[in-house]
Amino acid sequence: MALRYAMTLALCMLATPPSEASDAISQADGQMVRLAKLEIDEAQLDAYKAALKEEIEASVALEPGVLTLYAVAEKARPTHFTILEIYADRAAYEKHIKTPHFLKYKLGTEKMVKALELVETVPLVPSMKIK
Amino acid sequence: MALRYAMTLALCMLATPPSEASDAISQADGQMVRLAKLEIDEAQLDAYKAALKEEIEASVALEPGVLTLYAVAEKARPTHFTILEIYADRAAYEKHIKTPHFLKYKLGTEKMVKALELVETVPLVPSMKIK
Repeated sequence: MALRYAMTLALCMLATPPSEASDAISQADGQMVRLAKLEIDEAQLDAYKAALKEEIEASVALEPGVLTLYAVAEKARPTHFTILEIYADRAAYEKHIKTPHFLKYKLGTEKMVKALELVETVPLVPSMKIK
Repeated sequence: MALRYAMTLALCMLATPPSEASDAISQADGQMVRLAKLEIDEAQLDAYKAALKEEIEASVALEPGVLTLYAVAEKARPTHFTILEIYADRAAYEKHIKTPHFLKYKLGTEKMVKALELVETVPLVPSMKIK
């Protein structure tokens, strides 16, 4: 059993050396573009906005793979937020959600978020920037 | 009467020289940031995407006041689009909707759009870019 496991492992390593495997994932996935839609408890709105702003600014400054986190609040319903999230690839996203600043935000705002919807999307013009 | 009008006009011109007046408008209005949410007729989806792409690329290339038009389609519902629209100010938006490329898009896609919702928003970090 141990031998069979060792042989299988060896075959897997031959088939997909780490660098090629991660390149293949990047090429297949490309950018990861998502809309996060949140509803926040009105009584905690100011605290939530401060926490989200801190998390966004740290992520964009410290993580090359976080291409943008563009957050807006609706004028008519200020407790409703939409965040356009663009990551260089899925690996960048996986790395992002393990950072201290993301975990601080996630745990710190847990009781402020009344609803969260994550919508996976495809960009129409992937090279689009903000002037 | 003519004299009073001329004096009032002269006073107004002294009070708000054109350059200062337009600066004041920019500062008061700031950026105009909006989410457009659209549902498209499935049978005309490819034609719609081509028309939207053409309009977006022309707007961003030709209009300094159109800071971005970032359009995404939902993976799970490919007929549902969201566009993050950022204009330098309301004047840039008013100019945008009179351009030939916008009017071509608007008239050309009129029968493709099943639903359109325009949501006025406030950005959390107005200086945010896309890397």
